[in-house]
Amino acid sequence: MNTSDDIYFLDLAIELAVENVKKGGGPFGAVIVKDRKIIAKGTNRVTIDNDPTAHAEIVAIREACKILNDFQLTDCIIYSSCEPCPMCLGAIYWARPKKLIYAADKYDAADAGFDDSFIYDEIKLPYEKRQLKTITIKLEGACKPFDLWKSLENKKIY
Amino acid sequence: MNTSDDIYFLDLAIELAVENVKKGGGPFGAVIVKDRKIIAKGTNRVTIDNDPTAHAEIVAIREACKILNDFQLTDCIIYSSCEPCPMCLGAIYWARPKKLIYAADKYDAADAGFDDSFIYDEIKLPYEKRQLKTITIKLEGACKPFDLWKSLENKKIY
Repeated sequence: MNTSDDIYFLDLAIELAVENVKKGGGPFGAVIVKDRKIIAKGTNRVTIDNDPTAHAEIVAIREACKILNDFQLTDCIIYSSCEPCPMCLGAIYWARPKKLIYAADKYDAADAGFDDSFIYDEIKLPYEKRQLKTITIKLEGACKPFDLWKSLENKKIY
Repeated sequence: MNTSDDIYFLDLAIELAVENVKKGGGPFGAVIVKDRKIIAKGTNRVTIDNDPTAHAEIVAIREACKILNDFQLTDCIIYSSCEPCPMCLGAIYWARPKKLIYAADKYDAADAGFDDSFIYDEIKLPYEKRQLKTITIKLEGACKPFDLWKSLENKKIY
């Protein structure tokens, strides 16, 4: 069952996306909520900031973490105007909120000219079949950073 | 065929990862190269910056785009000490470099306690089977941002 809260915050994410287009940004918005309070909002700033990672969800996650002074969004809900692309979905997993709620889907995004659906398809392919030329060179020292990490006693796990 | 350049830059990414662990960061490093010149370096700063998106590749991509004053990494090569997680792989697709080269793989990362492999598995599942509670609410206005975007004549495509 969707609560009226969910609809309110999701509507807000959509409204942010509409306003962002009017300001020259991309058509995406996100809102992060904890205990029914808005912690952070984000809109797509890729072309405004010259930052391909500045999708609405990433912008909102970075801002919310700064405000909460934490690298985790424990007990937060992420509302997104659109189904997150693989980059944003990955970021959401790393931030570990309790829930993700979105409105439009990756096919709507693709219909508007965005690569979300293409990237989802690519991720499923073996490297040799991807359009992005991808090469693995397992150098002898490849696992040195992990070996050092594993040997540390007082590391900050994330 | 791997060039000695590739091995040099990939070794550098691994060395950055090792040094980063010594400084209290995560065991990952990345280098972005264009025309055989290093444009930017990145290391994992998640716990240092309280930013779950601050993986080595994302840090390097943001820095390289700032330096190139562009939201695309045209003709660049991304060298990563480890196979990118889904977030970073998505970011790499959005940045559109010409090539990705990495050393360790997602299983090495998982063996060191990182969720990369888990997130790859989750992305393949339908939403209702994922560990992250994910809800779609296709509100009536869900595509309003896209409709507005599509109607614009002078938009900056990305």
